[in-house]
Amino acid sequence: MTAISMEIIKKDTKTKARLGKLYTPHGVIETPVFMPVGTQATVKTMSPEELQEAGATIILSNTYHLFLRPGHELIARAGGLHKFMNWDRAILTDSGGFQVFSLGDLRKITEEGVEFRSHLDGSKQYLSPEKAIEVQISLGSDIVMAFDECTPYPATYEYAKKSAERTARWAKRCRDTLKTTDKQALFGIVQGSMYKDLRRESAGQITELDLPGYAIGGLSVGEPKEVMYEVLDYTVPLLSEDRPRYLMGVGSPDALIEGVMRGIDMFDCVLPTRIARNGTAMTRFGKIVIRNAEYADDFTPIDPSCNCYTCKNYSRAYIRHLLKADEILGLRLMTIHNLHFLINLMAELRKALAEEKLSEYRQKFFQDYGYEM
Amino acid sequence: MTAISMEIIKKDTKTKARLGKLYTPHGVIETPVFMPVGTQATVKTMSPEELQEAGATIILSNTYHLFLRPGHELIARAGGLHKFMNWDRAILTDSGGFQVFSLGDLRKITEEGVEFRSHLDGSKQYLSPEKAIEVQISLGSDIVMAFDECTPYPATYEYAKKSAERTARWAKRCRDTLKTTDKQALFGIVQGSMYKDLRRESAGQITELDLPGYAIGGLSVGEPKEVMYEVLDYTVPLLSEDRPRYLMGVGSPDALIEGVMRGIDMFDCVLPTRIARNGTAMTRFGKIVIRNAEYADDFTPIDPSCNCYTCKNYSRAYIRHLLKADEILGLRLMTIHNLHFLINLMAELRKALAEEKLSEYRQKFFQDYGYEM
Repeated sequence: MTAISMEIIKKDTKTKARLGKLYTPHGVIETPVFMPVGTQATVKTMSPEELQEAGATIILSNTYHLFLRPGHELIARAGGLHKFMNWDRAILTDSGGFQVFSLGDLRKITEEGVEFRSHLDGSKQYLSPEKAIEVQISLGSDIVMAFDECTPYPATYEYAKKSAERTARWAKRCRDTLKTTDKQALFGIVQGSMYKDLRRESAGQITELDLPGYAIGGLSVGEPKEVMYEVLDYTVPLLSEDRPRYLMGVGSPDALIEGVMRGIDMFDCVLPTRIARNGTAMTRFGKIVIRNAEYADDFTPIDPSCNCYTCKNYSRAYIRHLLKADEILGLRLMTIHNLHFLINLMAELRKALAEEKLSEYRQKFFQDYGYEM
Repeated sequence: MTAISMEIIKKDTKTKARLGKLYTPHGVIETPVFMPVGTQATVKTMSPEELQEAGATIILSNTYHLFLRPGHELIARAGGLHKFMNWDRAILTDSGGFQVFSLGDLRKITEEGVEFRSHLDGSKQYLSPEKAIEVQISLGSDIVMAFDECTPYPATYEYAKKSAERTARWAKRCRDTLKTTDKQALFGIVQGSMYKDLRRESAGQITELDLPGYAIGGLSVGEPKEVMYEVLDYTVPLLSEDRPRYLMGVGSPDALIEGVMRGIDMFDCVLPTRIARNGTAMTRFGKIVIRNAEYADDFTPIDPSCNCYTCKNYSRAYIRHLLKADEILGLRLMTIHNLHFLINLMAELRKALAEEKLSEYRQKFFQDYGYEM
């Protein structure tokens, strides 16, 4: 018995896109789906009700951060992450690998695991495949990610190969640690950088573990988008057709659309929430820097055609005032809008997919948004 | 025709407390009432819906801050402050006097008005009784406060006398500026520091203007609470029985209770929202510093008997985690709780008043809270 399962509702006839339902212990998720990021057991500025109103059915939270503060054992005593943060829909936790490897000189990698210094207090810490899974078991997330090494870009062939092979060995240790459970499902992560044969090798090693879902890691790490799309072109078909496919760290509208058309079901990214707090709104007609002086006297909504709470009730001028005055409501209103925008984009993609109009949707969207095609 | 009017529902037989209804262009307010402070056209961290859920029927906003940023003319172009900030209940605006006088060396007072430097950019600015009213007309607040000099504490008799007399002359200029309107009502402010005969003189001069409401200023400025209560004892009876009485800048639970028992109908204070953001929760059993380590593993609500959104859904441990991790949701949850606490305290006072049980209520509250009696 597995904690999550995927139902493919429809496959697009012209692209590799799929419409699906992901069944989890905390609700059914329509895919393709975008997952807002709640790093420290909260999606920055938002309440759970606001997330639900924005249409979020699953969020991502970070093992590394929760492990260090408040500590996974505390969250276990609280009854798990869902209860701790008052979120009763699905949660995916990453493994901490990405954050730990980003620490640079502050970490030391061996085959066994990674020793590192906490960015909070410099204390010595340790994560391994086993430990990362233990932490995620304490958190009680619906989807548990394997502890991988996110290969940086650019990487030599030799480094990328070594890194992908270790990721595969670690994935097996993760699977052996997360015993069969109907509460939590393990996703493996395919690495291999931008090398086709390494991606093939990695996909083979990871899918061999017969996990309930697979992620593509090591993309959106600085490479040109065309390179990312090319990697998706040859990597996605290597993943099991009947399991969810998750592209990690992607959240720009163009990449979401291109990813869906290449057969991706799940995405996450801090982009919409981070740029919101910097005063940049996403709209169908491109980005708007609300902090700019030109909006000081603009009493229209961020996007007059948008149905979000922010656009229904507040003007650009008011939001700009809040941002300039360092008022928290400004950050909230911006975040609500950007999350609504991306989650709504996914809903529109699902609709276009159902109607076999994905390419038309893409063309219109790219034109409106101002992307090159 | 006047914009606001007061209906006295019941007078307590044992104290000077009154139960009333204040009719405004933006709803009926049950008094005694506590007004949350929304300095910069937002009650810090809160949405209008959250304020309503906390039971707020009227908020205070600051003329000084809005005059400087975003500017009252911009707010007028937005259709007024209610529309600008999406708040359709009542708004009281102060006159800016208190903030301007607090600037110390940065301001120069003459009989005509006050020249000062903006705390934002050092620019030269000017407020006078006429200007302060013009600004508040642009804002469109339901209750407009006269431009007064808030006498600092301690003040010599001579200074306090000069200051109160100027406040009276300025109040007349304010009344002459705010033409009769059914949209906005002017409140006068009684000064006189801690001198009984000056308070009497000031009350006489201000009530002579026949305004729809009166405030007591120059209290809660550093004097011992007993002194404040004594001033209230002899000043409140000098104010018109049929008009609302507003004690400015008071928001500690004990002072709210003592104020109500001395016949005050309206209060405002930044205290509950400010200490919330510092991590201090108000409860019926006294203050709780949620940031303290002792709450790290405490999975009970801030106050198990509290009905607010925060206490119904979150633990002390979670809120502490959010505060320690600098997460905005922590500030929101704390603010919701503290505002609910004070607004609920006022509702309980109204109930006790209706049942002629004010003294019993006070005794029990002081005992539970840990106040000296």
